[in-house]
Amino acid sequence: MAGSSLAASDGAEPDALAALSALLADELARCNRTIVQRMESPVPLIPRLAAHLVAAGGKRIRPLLTLAAARLAGYPGAGEGRGAERHIQLAACVEFIHTATLLHDDVVDESALRRGLASANAVFGNQAPVLVGDFLFARAFQIMVKDGSLRVLGILSDAAATIAEGEVLQLAIQNDLDTPESRYLEVIDGKTAALFAAACQVGAVLGESSPAEERALAEYGRNLGMAFQLTDDALDYAAEQSDLGKTVGDDFREGKVTLPVLFAFSGGDAAERAFWKRAIEEGTQAAGDLPRALSLLERHGAIAATLARAEEFAGAAHRALALFAPSPLKARLTALTDFAVHRRR
Amino acid sequence: MAGSSLAASDGAEPDALAALSALLADELARCNRTIVQRMESPVPLIPRLAAHLVAAGGKRIRPLLTLAAARLAGYPGAGEGRGAERHIQLAACVEFIHTATLLHDDVVDESALRRGLASANAVFGNQAPVLVGDFLFARAFQIMVKDGSLRVLGILSDAAATIAEGEVLQLAIQNDLDTPESRYLEVIDGKTAALFAAACQVGAVLGESSPAEERALAEYGRNLGMAFQLTDDALDYAAEQSDLGKTVGDDFREGKVTLPVLFAFSGGDAAERAFWKRAIEEGTQAAGDLPRALSLLERHGAIAATLARAEEFAGAAHRALALFAPSPLKARLTALTDFAVHRRR
Repeated sequence: MAGSSLAASDGAEPDALAALSALLADELARCNRTIVQRMESPVPLIPRLAAHLVAAGGKRIRPLLTLAAARLAGYPGAGEGRGAERHIQLAACVEFIHTATLLHDDVVDESALRRGLASANAVFGNQAPVLVGDFLFARAFQIMVKDGSLRVLGILSDAAATIAEGEVLQLAIQNDLDTPESRYLEVIDGKTAALFAAACQVGAVLGESSPAEERALAEYGRNLGMAFQLTDDALDYAAEQSDLGKTVGDDFREGKVTLPVLFAFSGGDAAERAFWKRAIEEGTQAAGDLPRALSLLERHGAIAATLARAEEFAGAAHRALALFAPSPLKARLTALTDFAVHRRR
Repeated sequence: MAGSSLAASDGAEPDALAALSALLADELARCNRTIVQRMESPVPLIPRLAAHLVAAGGKRIRPLLTLAAARLAGYPGAGEGRGAERHIQLAACVEFIHTATLLHDDVVDESALRRGLASANAVFGNQAPVLVGDFLFARAFQIMVKDGSLRVLGILSDAAATIAEGEVLQLAIQNDLDTPESRYLEVIDGKTAALFAAACQVGAVLGESSPAEERALAEYGRNLGMAFQLTDDALDYAAEQSDLGKTVGDDFREGKVTLPVLFAFSGGDAAERAFWKRAIEEGTQAAGDLPRALSLLERHGAIAATLARAEEFAGAAHRALALFAPSPLKARLTALTDFAVHRRR
């Protein structure tokens, strides 16, 4: 089973994200309330659809990173029970940008599940998710304008443009199994890592970090995002459906070119390459194809190799924190780099 | 023929938009160059898809309004050959926001034509237009951040949120022929008039107008936008296809609830109302339905009534300019309020 490549992870801390959430529980709760308040609109379908996603949960990794980075960087408002709000508002804003891209992704991918629930497009059709995504994106900018920092606006508008570029680039490689690994990494650097990096950098800006610390936090976020995405790509072929919150083999059925597939394809013989070409590039699939794909991925160590890449990025994220003094928060952020790779969902 | 309701317009100035474009030709050309430059991206599909829309032309009304308002408000950079650039950059930014909404609208509407050419989704599928729209939206904010005015950022992020709300509200009334006129006007106030208003207001901000002048320019834009949209709704049932640049009866075939239909429905007898229910609410249409719809619209004077509403808004736009001193530019902007209603496409 492909899942066996995750067996080595059993000894790792499975709760690093929960531990970070616990440390920041007060601020995360305020952020969640802000999210609910700020998706209000006189148009009822907007909060209704947005609530569908919020109800589905999600790990809130990105807003947590903003809250954590603000505290690590010494933003005076960070911490339990303090009055200042900027990091709360901007964390919500980061989550809005993320949610907007999820809504648009699901339309693009025609996904049936998101976070274990029916995806917004499956429930509401394509129309509302496109428009509500636009609303959340605009609302994020309204929040930033109210915050008033042109630096923050610059960081997040740059991230938003980079995300869109990454997503378009992903479309462009979608039918190309000869995509080099470097190009694939470029795609996820845009579609995932850019917002992780920006979420951290915004926190650093709030704390008026030194340029070196700001760069370090952005680097931490970027590498953590890469580790998370590559692990997601692996888990799509390896996790149990109940754990993953989406259908195992989703990426396969959607004909998505991801790193495990690129590894199996480039290492495969002619018959195997023909199989991948048919299933992924042509999108012609039959019963038994997914088990065959899983067995080919296993044979070529493609899941393990993908997770090894994820490990490298997690290591870089870990190292990026070196210039911060030891603290319980730093320990949690460090543990998160392990968690990114050694998790089951 | 429904088209006959436009016959009265023959004496009106048909070229007010061309005249305004001519007066601002130098700046409009610089704006067009900026649009092409700023849609560049290392991801080739982005400029390629964006160029598809730019090539299709479009009237550039919104950026023209920004340029015109900046000049009317006395922005020192406005005028031929001057070096300052803010109005050029922000006019491009307004057009990017508009283009992003067009791309997303076409996905939502599944339109086959846009500006007389195959729409982006017809050529590229749904995926790329959603993502390239996101890119253009983000790029617009990058331009604003570079400009550095939080007031401008506030005006355009508010407009973007309002546009999305208007579009979602439009979805909500889509299957409801009992929609009151006031609610329909709310929809187009959001989806169309808000950006017209914002385009003008941004120009006023650049000119450091008095609050009264800024309000007047925003009012001008808002009412002009209403007049344009209502006339579009009428033309969809009245124009010749070659003039309109889209298919006559598009709104009908898409089952769109627009003001002409609301007028014909509310004035219709039981059989007519059953016809509209079937064709618009249920979306079940047969050959001969469009001619029947046109004849019902004519019988109830629905096109004329819609154009009369458009006239009222055009009049309000005209009056909003009262506090500006006479000038060739003011004359052009005034003529544009007539053109909004008395045009064939």
